[in-house]
Amino acid sequence: MTDPRFPESPGALLDHIWNRLEAAVGQGSDPFHTPCLATEADSGPDARTVVLRRVEPARREICCHTDARSAKVGELRGRPGASWVFYDAQAGVQLRGRGTVTLHSSDSLAQEQWEATGPSSRRCYLSEGGPGAGLPAPGSGLPAALEERVPTAGESIPGRGNFVVIACRLEALDWLALDSRGHRRARFLWRDGAWDHAWITP
Amino acid sequence: MTDPRFPESPGALLDHIWNRLEAAVGQGSDPFHTPCLATEADSGPDARTVVLRRVEPARREICCHTDARSAKVGELRGRPGASWVFYDAQAGVQLRGRGTVTLHSSDSLAQEQWEATGPSSRRCYLSEGGPGAGLPAPGSGLPAALEERVPTAGESIPGRGNFVVIACRLEALDWLALDSRGHRRARFLWRDGAWDHAWITP
Repeated sequence: MTDPRFPESPGALLDHIWNRLEAAVGQGSDPFHTPCLATEADSGPDARTVVLRRVEPARREICCHTDARSAKVGELRGRPGASWVFYDAQAGVQLRGRGTVTLHSSDSLAQEQWEATGPSSRRCYLSEGGPGAGLPAPGSGLPAALEERVPTAGESIPGRGNFVVIACRLEALDWLALDSRGHRRARFLWRDGAWDHAWITP
Repeated sequence: MTDPRFPESPGALLDHIWNRLEAAVGQGSDPFHTPCLATEADSGPDARTVVLRRVEPARREICCHTDARSAKVGELRGRPGASWVFYDAQAGVQLRGRGTVTLHSSDSLAQEQWEATGPSSRRCYLSEGGPGAGLPAPGSGLPAALEERVPTAGESIPGRGNFVVIACRLEALDWLALDSRGHRRARFLWRDGAWDHAWITP
């Protein structure tokens, strides 16, 4: 039985996976645009939705942005392992990725990503206390002047100091296609410089 | 500024959260029906999409089902901490939950959930090697007779032995409402028999 939703040749399936990831970077409505990123805190696993910001198939790398003051930066400094889940409910497709993270705040990758970030996305790096800081009432934590509007380019500059790129080099991929006629699942493991492929039980 | 999407009183917001979770159990199209569940493997964090199957607000408990042979069961036996992410992209709402898991395979909870599970959902517990077992070609891992059809009630019985309920008692909730006018975020921590509430920076 050939499944029309994805190619059955391992190499073609891998290309298909990376193509889907690359396409999701610029497409806010693509469910793969907002994966779940799981990390390891002292208290156990921690997870949250992030925005996929960059994909480099040749480096096996996927990136999101975060605030240097967020809990996940501290977690990843101590334990750089990360797990990603991309889920497209409508298509019935799940992609999981496992890998090791590097944090970038002052190198060319960070600068390139910051420059590609618009003022409305830069706004969240301008909060006064940083993510998780207590507030006396429901609020954004932003300076009062920015509470109801997008910062100007000049106003966004202080956010640069709080801006971090989380880059994850993937070592394992797990592709699952759900189907009432029987699911299909493939696993890819990076070994000795190549992707090792296997069909596995869903 | 009052946000019409959720109540600002902590008690009412907590009720709203539990109501949303309860509603998602029976509603396949609700994005909260398919949260991400993160666990801790030897190799680091692990995460995957699961189906929300039961919610017990009075016990602070949320449940999904899994196969006893899946990797996450082994992971949770060793490290029972779990993190859940519910994400409704359209509404711009994320709920995160952290807690401790118990595994149920032979008690009344497991039996009740098994009895509430229909033949098509029971099918995945009938695979021959269990989730992750290798296959020579793309396939479901099901016995040939069930490859293309739903098992009868009788045929589904062997699946009972592979059926496990993952029940997680939540100790922390993190509610985030995204809004271009400024996000809003609330944290609830279970302390001394009550939910401690705080508004925090998104």
